[in-house]
Amino acid sequence: MSNFGFLNLRVVNPYEVAFREARSAVGAAVVMKSADEFPALPDAIDDCSLVVGTTTLRNRERHQALYRLEEGGRRIRKALTSERVALLFGSEKVGLSNDDLSHCHWLMHIPTREAHPSMNLGQAVAVCLYELVRGGGVRGVAAKPNAATARELERLTEILVETLRDSGYLGTNVSEATTAKIRRLVRRLKLDGADAELLLGMLRQMQWKIRAE
Amino acid sequence: MSNFGFLNLRVVNPYEVAFREARSAVGAAVVMKSADEFPALPDAIDDCSLVVGTTTLRNRERHQALYRLEEGGRRIRKALTSERVALLFGSEKVGLSNDDLSHCHWLMHIPTREAHPSMNLGQAVAVCLYELVRGGGVRGVAAKPNAATARELERLTEILVETLRDSGYLGTNVSEATTAKIRRLVRRLKLDGADAELLLGMLRQMQWKIRAE
Repeated sequence: MSNFGFLNLRVVNPYEVAFREARSAVGAAVVMKSADEFPALPDAIDDCSLVVGTTTLRNRERHQALYRLEEGGRRIRKALTSERVALLFGSEKVGLSNDDLSHCHWLMHIPTREAHPSMNLGQAVAVCLYELVRGGGVRGVAAKPNAATARELERLTEILVETLRDSGYLGTNVSEATTAKIRRLVRRLKLDGADAELLLGMLRQMQWKIRAE
Repeated sequence: MSNFGFLNLRVVNPYEVAFREARSAVGAAVVMKSADEFPALPDAIDDCSLVVGTTTLRNRERHQALYRLEEGGRRIRKALTSERVALLFGSEKVGLSNDDLSHCHWLMHIPTREAHPSMNLGQAVAVCLYELVRGGGVRGVAAKPNAATARELERLTEILVETLRDSGYLGTNVSEATTAKIRRLVRRLKLDGADAELLLGMLRQMQWKIRAE
C-alpha cells in the first residue's frame, strides 16, 4: 500500500495477536501503524460510495457483475475522481464471505491461471494497487461525492427488509441469504445520495402506515 | 509465479537454510520445488537471449536503458514470442549488485512512490508478472442484464405512486409534476427486467397490506 501511495488501511475484526505483532514489527510502514480497526464490515465502509470486492473466479455463485482487474481498475480510477472507494480483501484462507460480498457494488478478480487461482494476500493487494497507479497515479478525492454512501444504502436495505417483513412479503424470520439478496438489489440501483434519501423517506412512511394499522 | 503461469524459477547462490525451508514448506508451490539452483548469475542466465534487471529508481548510476514496468512489460511480451527471457530480482535488502546489473540488456522499475520505492520481493515479483499476463488470458464476465422495458418501468411508477398515496406519503390528489418526479426517479434506477419484476412484487404486497387494514 505504501509503495503505491495508498495510506488508508481499514481492518475488520483482525486476529488481535497477529495484528498487534504486524503493527509493531520493525519497519512496519506508517500504513500499518495508522490502520483503523472496525468490529464489522458495514462500519468500515460506512462513508464509501463505491465498494468493490476481490474474489477468485472459482466457487462463487455469480450474483454480481465481475470484472477482470484491468477493467475493474479502469472503473475504480474513474470513480476515485469523485467518490470514496473501498477495495475489499478477504482473509488469505477463505476470502470474503457471501455476506461480505453482498455489500459490494461489483466484484473484481486478478487474472490468475485456473490451476492456481488463489493468491497470497499481500501479493494480491500489491497487484491490484499497481493496476490503479500504473497509468500515472490516482488523483485526489473530490470534495463532493455524489453517489450514495454504504451507510445510506445499508439503512435503505434494513428498512426495505423490515417493511417487506411487516407487509408479509417476507416471513418473520428473514434469512441471511434473503437479506444478502435484497442488499445486492439495493446496490444495483446505483442511487445517488439524494435518491437514497428520497426512497428512505418513502419506505419509512409505508412502514409507519403498515405498522399503524 | 505459479498464479500467473511462470513455472521456471532459477535461484542464484541462495542462503541454504532459508531456501531448503521454503522448498519444504507446507503448500510450497511446484515452482519452488522444481527451482534450479546456480552458483553464480552467468550460469543461471546462460540460455537466455534477453536479460532484464529490476531496480528502484534510486541510488543507481544510469548505465543502461531504464523503462517503467508498463513499457518494459510490453518489450518483454514481444520478446517472449521468439526468445527466452530472464527477469532478474535481487535480494530484498540490497537488490541487484552493479555486477548483476551489468548482465542485463536493460532495466525496469515498478512505479512506486518516491517516499517508499523499495518493495517486498514477493510483491515485486507478483506485480511484474501480472504486468506480463494482464493483456491475455481469461476474460472477466460482466453481468449483462436486459434493461427493463418502458412498460415495466411505467407499471412500477404507477404502483409506487399509488402506494405512496395510500400510505399518506403523498396527498390524495397527486399532481402531474409529482408523478413525473417519481417517474424520473424510477428511470434513474437503471433496472433490468428481473429487478423491475422483483420491485413490482414487493410494492404490490405493501399496497395490499396497507389497503387490507
